[in-house]
Amino acid sequence: MKKIMLSHGGGGEEMNSLINETIFKIFDNEILRYSNDSAILNLNGKTAFSSDSFVVTPIFFSGGDIGKIAACGTINDLAMVAASAKYLSCSLIIEEGLEISELEAVLSSLAKVCKEADVKVVCGDTKVVPKGKCDKIFINTAGIGEIVCEGVELKNLKPGAKILLSGDIGRHGGVVLANREEFELSSNLTSDCKSLKGVVLKLLKEGVKPQCMRDATRGGLSAVLNEWAKFTRSDILVFEEKIRVSDEVTGICELFGFEPYELANEGTFVLAVDEAQADKALEILREFDENATIIGEVLSEQNSRVVIENAYKSRRFLEPPKGELLPRIC
Amino acid sequence: MKKIMLSHGGGGEEMNSLINETIFKIFDNEILRYSNDSAILNLNGKTAFSSDSFVVTPIFFSGGDIGKIAACGTINDLAMVAASAKYLSCSLIIEEGLEISELEAVLSSLAKVCKEADVKVVCGDTKVVPKGKCDKIFINTAGIGEIVCEGVELKNLKPGAKILLSGDIGRHGGVVLANREEFELSSNLTSDCKSLKGVVLKLLKEGVKPQCMRDATRGGLSAVLNEWAKFTRSDILVFEEKIRVSDEVTGICELFGFEPYELANEGTFVLAVDEAQADKALEILREFDENATIIGEVLSEQNSRVVIENAYKSRRFLEPPKGELLPRIC
Repeated sequence: MKKIMLSHGGGGEEMNSLINETIFKIFDNEILRYSNDSAILNLNGKTAFSSDSFVVTPIFFSGGDIGKIAACGTINDLAMVAASAKYLSCSLIIEEGLEISELEAVLSSLAKVCKEADVKVVCGDTKVVPKGKCDKIFINTAGIGEIVCEGVELKNLKPGAKILLSGDIGRHGGVVLANREEFELSSNLTSDCKSLKGVVLKLLKEGVKPQCMRDATRGGLSAVLNEWAKFTRSDILVFEEKIRVSDEVTGICELFGFEPYELANEGTFVLAVDEAQADKALEILREFDENATIIGEVLSEQNSRVVIENAYKSRRFLEPPKGELLPRIC
Repeated sequence: MKKIMLSHGGGGEEMNSLINETIFKIFDNEILRYSNDSAILNLNGKTAFSSDSFVVTPIFFSGGDIGKIAACGTINDLAMVAASAKYLSCSLIIEEGLEISELEAVLSSLAKVCKEADVKVVCGDTKVVPKGKCDKIFINTAGIGEIVCEGVELKNLKPGAKILLSGDIGRHGGVVLANREEFELSSNLTSDCKSLKGVVLKLLKEGVKPQCMRDATRGGLSAVLNEWAKFTRSDILVFEEKIRVSDEVTGICELFGFEPYELANEGTFVLAVDEAQADKALEILREFDENATIIGEVLSEQNSRVVIENAYKSRRFLEPPKGELLPRIC
């Protein structure tokens, strides 16, 4: 048995073998082994709940794979509302013919992220579709987390807040694009794909209370800032020279005609904090990534626009991303 | 804008429009409108968590569609551990070119089931893949429910338990098969696809405490009984004449060479109760479906086998389903 067959999704013996002998072994824990229709959990108080489907292509890329991104994506969405991820579901849609070794590799990546982040995969589902009806594998994760600090929500973003960025931007989008175009990277550029649970818990533990946070995935930094500006109706000012972009990402952007601000990230987030907490927040962010910076602030003007200022003090609007961008980045 | 374009999944303005103007309108509630990365919920005590991806084809079938099945499937998985579904996520993988009217139709079905079952869709995700990389639409739902009665779990299934079935079997599988083969049904046969939240809450409210429950989806009744026999190591005896199968399903099985016991159901469940509660449970089940019956019992013999006895007292093993069965039934 080396390839996934339709019978692996049929609900019969082959599916049970795949689940018991491959999937449960990789995600092994007591809740899974009880084999109920739902996982039974003890939860108390404010709880965060999020879900994402992942369709990234190629499924293996420099610095990660679809399994790693499926774990990080949902753990990070929980972290962005100040929640500590506890439980994940993992639902697979697999194309007939996928090598079982590839399935094992992506699920092992997913399990590794979960183990490091102290998260349990407690339920899931396996579907197999005929060849040509999906593309290798799509993974959905839903996650449940305990909210560690209440009120870290977009509605609490206020004028005067400082905007911080946790690292350099565009690495995930750049890597996927380069890998997809079979463009050999002559460098060590890797996706930024990683769990943000650790850095967020550290911020909260040290007393930083963000007004709001968001990871800059599809649509990149530009999508986050524009969404914030639109939701709060405030203008947001950011400084180009504070936003770090690696030479490799700059090169890829020039080659393919993208803006680094619109390229996806999978382990880089934006946070807004009271001015008084900005330096402390930056110090903690830098323990995790030396490229963290304070990039700007929320203004009192109410035009719902994002303004970017370059090193020569010239200003322009950072428009919200539109059009096709880069499909299947996550 | 009549068809889904790649830009609807890109993270830019088109995706925001689709989410705000189509999806949020259909699922409208306060939690969604806060636009955070995760939904923020108040939960207390024992909580059930489940997730399924749905890839059924055709996406519209007699008696339902992929949206209805996506809501019912997860609500039912929660109900099977005696949990009252409260919150659902809805993550979409859409093929470029899907008619937006079709998207609206399936999401409206999903929303209708949720409304009737007092369930809120509180988070989700939208991905678009290029034409040919999935098949119209795949939907993942994850669900959270409050456990109303603790201990309704497979590990509590005991010898002596009576086995009940909530309705006639094979309708969902039969309908999908017939619809797919463009086989005109000359009858009113429809899928059994429905939420089981109401009937399960009624059982619990009336004091019936099932040992365990399972909805007979992929692999049908045979898969459930065999899984129970294997998990408990007990033999299970069921009576063929007690298991109701409509003439239409019998006809489809004869035509296509399937066993009704292996055909999928999407709103029919199996439950095991103490002998003393069997009649009461049956009475309540019959308020919801007159085809509910007591079909058998768990024996004290420990061979992990399911035995089926026909009207002439002749017995045979009901083997676990294997092979391709019917792909993409849910």
